[in-house]
Amino acid sequence: MSGWITVAGIGPGAEAQITPEVSAALAEATDIVGYVPYVARIAPRPGLRLHPSDNRVELDRARSALDMAAMGRRVVIVSSGDPGVFAMASALFEALEAHTGQESDIRILPGITAMLAAAARAGAPLGHDFCAINLSDNLKPFAIIEHRLRHAARGDFAMAFYNPRSASRPDGFARALAILRKECGPDRLMIFARAVSTPAETLRIVTLAEATPDMADMRTVVLVGNRATRRVGRWVYTPRSDREGLV
Amino acid sequence: MSGWITVAGIGPGAEAQITPEVSAALAEATDIVGYVPYVARIAPRPGLRLHPSDNRVELDRARSALDMAAMGRRVVIVSSGDPGVFAMASALFEALEAHTGQESDIRILPGITAMLAAAARAGAPLGHDFCAINLSDNLKPFAIIEHRLRHAARGDFAMAFYNPRSASRPDGFARALAILRKECGPDRLMIFARAVSTPAETLRIVTLAEATPDMADMRTVVLVGNRATRRVGRWVYTPRSDREGLV
Repeated sequence: MSGWITVAGIGPGAEAQITPEVSAALAEATDIVGYVPYVARIAPRPGLRLHPSDNRVELDRARSALDMAAMGRRVVIVSSGDPGVFAMASALFEALEAHTGQESDIRILPGITAMLAAAARAGAPLGHDFCAINLSDNLKPFAIIEHRLRHAARGDFAMAFYNPRSASRPDGFARALAILRKECGPDRLMIFARAVSTPAETLRIVTLAEATPDMADMRTVVLVGNRATRRVGRWVYTPRSDREGLV
Repeated sequence: MSGWITVAGIGPGAEAQITPEVSAALAEATDIVGYVPYVARIAPRPGLRLHPSDNRVELDRARSALDMAAMGRRVVIVSSGDPGVFAMASALFEALEAHTGQESDIRILPGITAMLAAAARAGAPLGHDFCAINLSDNLKPFAIIEHRLRHAARGDFAMAFYNPRSASRPDGFARALAILRKECGPDRLMIFARAVSTPAETLRIVTLAEATPDMADMRTVVLVGNRATRRVGRWVYTPRSDREGLV
């Protein structure tokens, strides 16, 4: 039995943003496991089994990958973006912890995460200290999200929000915007980047005063500048230096 | 004149972590600009001019790239990791802002940033909300760093520290550790990842109580878990869910 599991980041969408080490793992795989739209990005070939599954079944998916590897299969779990950022790597280790005694040959291969692809399109809005927050309250109470938003704003971090808004959670993003409006000035720059690196890509740069909840959906990553973030031409960037008194 | 500038992320070190779009830009370039060790990673070829420069001259380097592009050259500014994370993209926009009136054809191409490469090697320590802080006080007062460390800890963010310690700034990291010791428990997990993805790679997992300043240098990225970060076998991961009362 020489099965293995690789959790591979396939980037935000464009083929040209998939690293060669991920492409090599995909080429050696016997089985591809993942959320339906991510598995759909993998080209079928003879001998390759595709196992698309639904959203919110991450633990089942991870357990099934462990089982397949134990049977000698070479399994790639595909994650959009980077597998370690609000994605399948944590789910795999949760499943491993529950599968006591199972030794598996596991590798995690990083990928281009959505916030960095979006930041690159906009300029360099995350060019100074920043944080990444998952706005979904599927796995944590919204009070923790609010708590983190306040600390992020008071620490003057630029911010990236993943999963800002979905049909089943239409109100959370409005609450997040309300907190930002209390903590930051109305001119704070925000970027709504949707479907970055795909043909459907859109990029919208607004101030916090102009931002509305409907600007975000599940395919959007939202970036918020820090107090020094500014425009130059069509670009948005955060300066590297920070000399003025924050504290 | 059809010059352009691309700021390209060449990842933390391994060739296999350079995206195809970055490789394509490098292949089209007439000029490569960047910090000495990053330019040294680019294979020379006839017609390609290499312009290595020293650390701390980022603005001069960006200005010279703008001048070359204005003369019709195809310039790639290489950044280790991702160009938008404590790297050359912000420096380029600072230079562009000062170069009033200069219209340039600019692209930023994302790369695998050090914290995500390091996290992948360790497991999934950044699998929940996290922040990235540059610990260098070359461009900001250390009081701002301390302020951000406190907010990051109180918001229970996992953390990634870039530029934790250098020969010219030996004491800052000790001060950062002292703040973490006040804010977090002694069992908080930390990862010192040095030269990730290169032959010199080392990975060291310790508790906050065990951490000492000499574990970090300029080639190290330091990761700090949140209050739920744990070990499973040789791995470190942060669970996706957070149900217990933080607030």
